[in-house]
Amino acid sequence: MKSFRKELWFETKTRREFVHITDQVQRAVHDSGVREGLCLVNAMHITASVFINDNERGLHGDYEHWLEKLAPHAPTEQYRHNDSGEDNADAHMKRQIMGREVVVAITEGELDLGPWESIFYGEFDGRRRKRALIKIIGE
Amino acid sequence: MKSFRKELWFETKTRREFVHITDQVQRAVHDSGVREGLCLVNAMHITASVFINDNERGLHGDYEHWLEKLAPHAPTEQYRHNDSGEDNADAHMKRQIMGREVVVAITEGELDLGPWESIFYGEFDGRRRKRALIKIIGE
Amino acid sequence: MKSFRKELWFETKTRREFVHITDQVQRAVHDSGVREGLCLVNAMHITASVFINDNERGLHGDYEHWLEKLAPHAPTEQYRHNDSGEDNADAHMKRQIMGREVVVAITEGELDLGPWESIFYGEFDGRRRKRALIKIIGE
Repeated sequence: MKSFRKELWFETKTRREFVHITDQVQRAVHDSGVREGLCLVNAMHITASVFINDNERGLHGDYEHWLEKLAPHAPTEQYRHNDSGEDNADAHMKRQIMGREVVVAITEGELDLGPWESIFYGEFDGRRRKRALIKIIGE
Repeated sequence: MKSFRKELWFETKTRREFVHITDQVQRAVHDSGVREGLCLVNAMHITASVFINDNERGLHGDYEHWLEKLAPHAPTEQYRHNDSGEDNADAHMKRQIMGREVVVAITEGELDLGPWESIFYGEFDGRRRKRALIKIIGE
Repeated sequence: MKSFRKELWFETKTRREFVHITDQVQRAVHDSGVREGLCLVNAMHITASVFINDNERGLHGDYEHWLEKLAPHAPTEQYRHNDSGEDNADAHMKRQIMGREVVVAITEGELDLGPWESIFYGEFDGRRRKRALIKIIGE
């Protein structure tokens, strides 16, 4: 069994942002030498997500608007988590809806994705250095 | 290490539908010959889910109603994704709540599920041929 | 390839509760002898979650309040699932938002978690014996 580990680092300019990372994950799969296996990609921070959906700008705006409706940032005093001086309680909720991680099959040395599946790092409390983890196991 | 791959194909008659696939996944586990390992099952489309919950018709109706409340289909013009001529932005959201994938343990050659755990393909934009992926690794 | 299986049992005193299980999962990783691999932790019940987020009491109260807003327990008659005499339809929904499972990388014999990542069992219909599954594969 082979295993491979790589961190991806991000520092978004805005509080919320979706970063397309399919190519970086695919490169890690190639670097791992794994032909058949599983590839885990997870946010290492609890106010961010890794998810798979469409690489379409309109949809990303819709997500932004929709998540804000389901878990509004303001007023920040509505959340007890923010009593400690934080203002990111909403980000902890948005991340639960979008998910922490994806597990993707590796087949014949490639990510085994459907035609429209793209992998994203979803940032909900950015403007600082944060990272995602890629872990690959297989043969 | 063994690995096994199989696609399940669906063409639902209605836009939204939950298809019970536990037996098909269990059959794939048997076909794989894996006794100890992990079984990934994921939608290969970004307007569909694979999830685990109750095989109970009343609950499925409740999900339908609840998801429609959290991410309404209409009016379709509320979503920028639909500006391109699509009408399925809501399906991209429903799928995030229900999740893309499940990872299930394989123990002694069987899916290691709790007593009420059933695996479903959740369709949110059907009436066309779509698929899920089963990938099994282990020994 | 090595594999390891362990069940964690819970009986919460209240209907809803978050139980911190990172240490128990870490111990299972040590017991497995796996140095490089993947660790799946999933609820074996469909009204409970395993998720990763902050070990912060204020946030947990926020989650409780937020989930109750997105999927209210009462009035219980609003859900067809409850027609069968159950009163836990809302728990099946809360669990979908928080997720069934997490998959965590194992690197050099330890859970490969970010600095604030903590693993929780999320109970939404407790006061009875229920369990989560830990399944580890690797080398």
